[in-house]
Amino acid sequence: MSILVVGSVALDSIKTPLGEKTDILGGSATYFSYSASFFTKVNLVAVVGNDFPKEHIKLLESRKINTEGLQTVKGNTFRWSGCYENDMNEAKTLSTCLNVFETFKPEIPESYKNIEYVFLANIDPDLQMEVLSQMKKPKLIAADSMNLWIKIKKPSLTKLLSKIDILIINDGEARLFTEQPSLIKAGKIILDYGLKYVVIKKGEHGSLLFSKDGFFAAPAYPLEEVFDPTGAGDTFAGGFFGYLAKLNKKPTDNDLRRAVVHGSVMASFNVEDFSLERLKTLTSKEIETRYKKFKDITNFK
Amino acid sequence: MSILVVGSVALDSIKTPLGEKTDILGGSATYFSYSASFFTKVNLVAVVGNDFPKEHIKLLESRKINTEGLQTVKGNTFRWSGCYENDMNEAKTLSTCLNVFETFKPEIPESYKNIEYVFLANIDPDLQMEVLSQMKKPKLIAADSMNLWIKIKKPSLTKLLSKIDILIINDGEARLFTEQPSLIKAGKIILDYGLKYVVIKKGEHGSLLFSKDGFFAAPAYPLEEVFDPTGAGDTFAGGFFGYLAKLNKKPTDNDLRRAVVHGSVMASFNVEDFSLERLKTLTSKEIETRYKKFKDITNFK
Repeated sequence: MSILVVGSVALDSIKTPLGEKTDILGGSATYFSYSASFFTKVNLVAVVGNDFPKEHIKLLESRKINTEGLQTVKGNTFRWSGCYENDMNEAKTLSTCLNVFETFKPEIPESYKNIEYVFLANIDPDLQMEVLSQMKKPKLIAADSMNLWIKIKKPSLTKLLSKIDILIINDGEARLFTEQPSLIKAGKIILDYGLKYVVIKKGEHGSLLFSKDGFFAAPAYPLEEVFDPTGAGDTFAGGFFGYLAKLNKKPTDNDLRRAVVHGSVMASFNVEDFSLERLKTLTSKEIETRYKKFKDITNFK
Repeated sequence: MSILVVGSVALDSIKTPLGEKTDILGGSATYFSYSASFFTKVNLVAVVGNDFPKEHIKLLESRKINTEGLQTVKGNTFRWSGCYENDMNEAKTLSTCLNVFETFKPEIPESYKNIEYVFLANIDPDLQMEVLSQMKKPKLIAADSMNLWIKIKKPSLTKLLSKIDILIINDGEARLFTEQPSLIKAGKIILDYGLKYVVIKKGEHGSLLFSKDGFFAAPAYPLEEVFDPTGAGDTFAGGFFGYLAKLNKKPTDNDLRRAVVHGSVMASFNVEDFSLERLKTLTSKEIETRYKKFKDITNFK
């Protein structure tokens, strides 16, 4: 089944120990869409300025990502600039120019309103709620968030948690939200807000999946070099949610585990190059091979 | 087969967010011995002062740990004092009084010299080499080290690596030794010093096993509360090496993986209380149950 994703499309300027790029394609909804497109059809809602290069839209469409909901408005596209130093798990933001993203009001095209798999990428939780109110029969809803909203809009975020099935956040956000240093405690506390599943991403240390009935820990794929971690979390979410949408059934505990591993696989490819460069050449065969490798590196008899 | 362990026996004073204790039984060889004793016979070489409580020796002997090589000399026992604040992965050392440990020269009793499984806990790498030179037919040799020796005795430590089979160190030490932020690269670089296996411990993030033929990643057991992480690394090593010594054969890749998980299981119990408190009441049944749980939390079909 197809997915709706609402989030940001951006132009990023990034410096890592291995290189530097200016105004490259980025944004949470971009990474999510591209990653999920390896599993199912994706319908995008986002906003860009009239400076946004047409080739980027063509790139998304080449993966059959529906861009009907991608608004182009007068002004500049959202720009983010950041760098990574020793700790490749954490970006240092150099500048954030929201531009047209500042007044973004997600408008869900009529043709999207019956979509059953809904992913709310990291935007203001009030807007995430507004998106949900426009959807007619969502079957599985997942969301991401970030430190900013936890700090300034915790009541809205808390309300959102009671309306969604899955929260996918990183370790720092989980600790901030729950004020708990233990991620194991944090995951369980977040579950208690009414969620079915919580996924905590830990960068190079892998990810944790919490549900009422179980717990799953997956390592990260053992890469010798991380070229650029930007978008890894959104690419993870795309693989995770794309896999579940492709299944199109009430996921079992094992389905969720497989989804986490597919998320990790997609993220591991994404960090091998800037922007979508690595995903652009990615094949289903490569995804499958790395999935099998994941089985091998975690297996003991 | 039985194990020789050479390391420290200490009296620790520890403060964690959950409590505080003074002069409790600690030391690398203590934690290692006690943990390994659940798998095989352990023969200890260490030194204590004449202030060392006899009840601690009785405790070790109650686990059939051979204390023939535990020297008691005039003076005070090695004392370490540390605290854990927000980051339970890292102890802040408040004071280190080497006392009788400062002039410790490991003397291997005649009855120990034919032992085939040798574990060199964290002591001066020159002393680790001296211990090896006293052993007649070691079959499997593993060692630990620490930041101090990497900083001030890197040539000695490097020489040691060519004489042992397995190095077990933590993430910070691996990064410091190789000057590589990537643990995946670090593990491979250390292997190239002539080792068969390298285990990198990552505290709450689990551990990584490197060998020429493969790679294995194990999560940490999902504990909601870590009471006191002191000795977790040595307890891990005791479970890991104890398991291999019990097998008493050339370990396969899968044997090594099982050994890592046994190490993780033992460490997970150890951090549930101060000193050896939790291990004192531990049963083989509990070890087996947690081992199975490890399989469950990492498994996907």
